[in-house]
Amino acid sequence: MSKIALAIHGGAGTILRSQMTAELEREYRTGLESALNAGWGILEKGGSSLDAVEAAVVSLEDHPLFNAGRGSVFTHEGRNEMDAAIMDGKTLDAGAVAFVKNVKNPIRLARLVMSKSGHVMLAGEGAIEFGHQMGAEFADDEYFFTEHRYRQLQHAIEQGRVQLDHAASADGTGPLFDNGTRRHGDAESVPPAVAGGAFSDAKAGGHGDAETNPQSKGTVGAVACDADGNLAAATSTGGMTNKKFGRVGDTPIIGAGTYADNATCAVSCTGHGEYFMRGVTAYDVAARMKYAGLPLEEAAGEAILHLSEIGGDGGLITVDAKGNVALPFNSEGMYRGFITLDGAARVEIYRS
Amino acid sequence: MSKIALAIHGGAGTILRSQMTAELEREYRTGLESALNAGWGILEKGGSSLDAVEAAVVSLEDHPLFNAGRGSVFTHEGRNEMDAAIMDGKTLDAGAVAFVKNVKNPIRLARLVMSKSGHVMLAGEGAIEFGHQMGAEFADDEYFFTEHRYRQLQHAIEQGRVQLDHAASADGTGPLFDNGTRRHGDAESVPPAVAGGAFSDAKAGGHGDAETNPQSKGTVGAVACDADGNLAAATSTGGMTNKKFGRVGDTPIIGAGTYADNATCAVSCTGHGEYFMRGVTAYDVAARMKYAGLPLEEAAGEAILHLSEIGGDGGLITVDAKGNVALPFNSEGMYRGFITLDGAARVEIYRS
Repeated sequence: MSKIALAIHGGAGTILRSQMTAELEREYRTGLESALNAGWGILEKGGSSLDAVEAAVVSLEDHPLFNAGRGSVFTHEGRNEMDAAIMDGKTLDAGAVAFVKNVKNPIRLARLVMSKSGHVMLAGEGAIEFGHQMGAEFADDEYFFTEHRYRQLQHAIEQGRVQLDHAASADGTGPLFDNGTRRHGDAESVPPAVAGGAFSDAKAGGHGDAETNPQSKGTVGAVACDADGNLAAATSTGGMTNKKFGRVGDTPIIGAGTYADNATCAVSCTGHGEYFMRGVTAYDVAARMKYAGLPLEEAAGEAILHLSEIGGDGGLITVDAKGNVALPFNSEGMYRGFITLDGAARVEIYRS
Repeated sequence: MSKIALAIHGGAGTILRSQMTAELEREYRTGLESALNAGWGILEKGGSSLDAVEAAVVSLEDHPLFNAGRGSVFTHEGRNEMDAAIMDGKTLDAGAVAFVKNVKNPIRLARLVMSKSGHVMLAGEGAIEFGHQMGAEFADDEYFFTEHRYRQLQHAIEQGRVQLDHAASADGTGPLFDNGTRRHGDAESVPPAVAGGAFSDAKAGGHGDAETNPQSKGTVGAVACDADGNLAAATSTGGMTNKKFGRVGDTPIIGAGTYADNATCAVSCTGHGEYFMRGVTAYDVAARMKYAGLPLEEAAGEAILHLSEIGGDGGLITVDAKGNVALPFNSEGMYRGFITLDGAARVEIYRS
């Protein structure tokens, strides 16, 4: 029996305490806790790391605050284009989708690509067609966090009528974090809301500054080690606010944003994707373990150091087959959390 | 001054002497020689490795026999969807395009992505729009090797009227391989033709067997070391015959099919792309040099060994900053060639 372990992230970037309201912070924490509970529940019952990372990422995709699935940001053209990838450390099987639209849970489609397509990466209309053939769940534009909906929200915020409602993501509630921070909304008609100026540029299609808001580098991800010592990694994103020209970031790129190998580690990255692609950062962690013999934490730290050297910022979460976890980042903050068998269970946002 | 070096490939796969005609083999060799001359001419004049690999790949893209650019295979829907990537080993800058259509030289568009977009990878319509804005050269469907054209060719082959015409690719003629094997066609109206049953499935949209013809795993690529010791890699492909669902292979994935870092090596891969993605093969060569301290040839050989272990087949070309080259593969054959300052200049197709 291996020591089960789970780590998740909800994006890295310029996340400053001074820009955060207590209300918004609580919502982020609750979202991270729900995702941890969703994945941990599976690992505790002897489930696979693949199922655990999928469940954790689905939970984050379903949460409107994180830039993935439901909460995906808008492209320059006002569209939601989502990417996701999953990898099985036991077999090195991998699946990824790039700029899919209206897919409720891109990570589930990535898993179908892995298990059913014979390919690793499907993109655009072809990936969507594959999803239809596989019976993947689709959602209409209204389900996603539309610009219209955002403007309604902005109006609500300006009027001081800030309401928080996480009824939609409360299903993942588990024992570990049922600590009273979670609040169940009572009004289905009230949109999931955000609060505070720090968030106010993140959803504005065409107007967001991808460098200066706490959600801009939003990506969600999970890595896990199950009782059999099998590792898995999953990553999902709504891309960059205001992105153009069919840009594909690191998330769906095996080796860049996502990687898993039982012999070394499972990795999910978040940050300025171009640098993770050039640094082949996810695989770089594994390669430092495999070829230089570094332990997990050191390998992960050095990979982030190299990312800094080439000018990139962000972070990653990683786990090895002994149940160790590391969550290094060089940005101001990273929405993150982990649970290990040592009893450590933590959700963090800031550097310190 | 570093020792300049150049290596190229035109795809790997089940290339058997028994399936090849003398005429077809001569055409492949001539195409490879033209590409080597195009790149070497730049390196010899003190040009950059980036310019050299771009020129070599452009030459292969323009050649109708290789599965890239003009000679791209057909997707399931009868379309040409092309991928390409380029990487600068000096800066770790990289650019890639995925399933672009009607772009005359995808590798040039990849370089524009690298130098002008601020991104690493652009895909589909967005990449094409970017190309238009950058003034990239487009060509109509007729320029590419269309199914209609292929059927004409098939008919010609069946009738025994096989004609070879490489006028279109004769521009790259340089000193090294001007050995009389090149033949200049005299009839512009005669389509670039292929000969022999070995090739007969490769272009048939919807009918090609991607596993059993000499062009199915077609990709072209080049790696170079220039006089300043700067490395570069470039790869371009027309994808898999009969591919579906917007499949993206390893070619445009930095770290999988293409990678370059002055500190280690430049790599361009060809083969069954999914395995190169799962093995992160291009970066794996570099990582074995960087972290395990292996010399180029050993690192490349072990990366191919690992590819074999996970069930993949194909090969790669690689060069280091000392001007060493290695061209390992585990498939039956790989269209390949290299030139080094030692005077070695060779074009090969088969295993032995």
